[in-house]
Amino acid sequence: MGHTSGTPSPRRRSERSRRATLDAVFTLTVQRGYAAVTIEAIAAAAGVGKPTIYRWWPSKGALALEAINDKVGGVLDFPDTGDIAADLTSQLTALVALLNSDFGTVYRGVIAEAQGDPDLSAALRDTVIAPRSRACQDRLAKAVTDGQLRGDVPVRAMVELLYAPLYYRFLLHTDPLSTRQVADQVEWALTGLRPVS
Amino acid sequence: MGHTSGTPSPRRRSERSRRATLDAVFTLTVQRGYAAVTIEAIAAAAGVGKPTIYRWWPSKGALALEAINDKVGGVLDFPDTGDIAADLTSQLTALVALLNSDFGTVYRGVIAEAQGDPDLSAALRDTVIAPRSRACQDRLAKAVTDGQLRGDVPVRAMVELLYAPLYYRFLLHTDPLSTRQVADQVEWALTGLRPVS
Repeated sequence: MGHTSGTPSPRRRSERSRRATLDAVFTLTVQRGYAAVTIEAIAAAAGVGKPTIYRWWPSKGALALEAINDKVGGVLDFPDTGDIAADLTSQLTALVALLNSDFGTVYRGVIAEAQGDPDLSAALRDTVIAPRSRACQDRLAKAVTDGQLRGDVPVRAMVELLYAPLYYRFLLHTDPLSTRQVADQVEWALTGLRPVS
Repeated sequence: MGHTSGTPSPRRRSERSRRATLDAVFTLTVQRGYAAVTIEAIAAAAGVGKPTIYRWWPSKGALALEAINDKVGGVLDFPDTGDIAADLTSQLTALVALLNSDFGTVYRGVIAEAQGDPDLSAALRDTVIAPRSRACQDRLAKAVTDGQLRGDVPVRAMVELLYAPLYYRFLLHTDPLSTRQVADQVEWALTGLRPVS
């Protein structure tokens, strides 16, 4: 039996504490709102010491950022069925469903905190926004090669036309997008605005 | 002379205090960052009492929101030269210049605070986002009538395709837009993404 029973190995105990801490920040944020959650409360809920938390994460924002990255997993990976409109619609639908769930509450808190914390802002960009933007740009570039999208608009600008409206609604609360509206949103971005001659 | 000299009228004194308070929240936020600014510091810098501030504004967020609305004035009003691409480019250039100035620092703080404050979020939507979106929709609807834009995409969706990328870059810091990039941004939104047949 050795390490698998009796006293757990330090590594296993450590992974269990990490998991418990990520779960605690997520649950507490959903229950109380991001601003009201303290490191003390997270430590108590996770059953770990405050020094342990500060050894692993520089700030509450960094901890919450890891919790959301952990939660996303592969849910937002890009499909490639060969039909760009269908693939974008499924991926954006998955994102909107996330934003409208408890995940959105935590993500919103991290984005808010990042506005006044340059380190967190850089981490948000480097671990959440930039990697997914690159994955989307790769899928769009393939669609350009396949003749499904025009080649004279940079794929990065295409990413922004597709994704920015979701964030605009999410952060400025004019009217959060529902998953049922995603197909129209994708269609409008893809169709463009000029009269077709 | 009467009221114009000697002891100022309460109304005049009151307007002077309001002005000083709005200036103080703006200046202090630029100097210290939004989160570090307290109502005490605002009161001291403006030379008014804390009770006066709380009588006029429910929260620091509400005060900062009034300060930014006050600062915008008519800068973001929509021009109408008859050329929709040119008009959008001038209006979006004015917005990007504001976002990249001290104004952006204060605006960013208000948007961050709104993420956890439903009253402030509603006020942000009702006094900043919604009125400008409606003004833009009116200008776009005229361009549809003039045959400069297609009629089968809702003007509200057009507004989001045009403005959301600016906010996406502003709030998620992937790379803030410069005023020199606005014309391209407008062109990409207007041109659309499908191959022209």
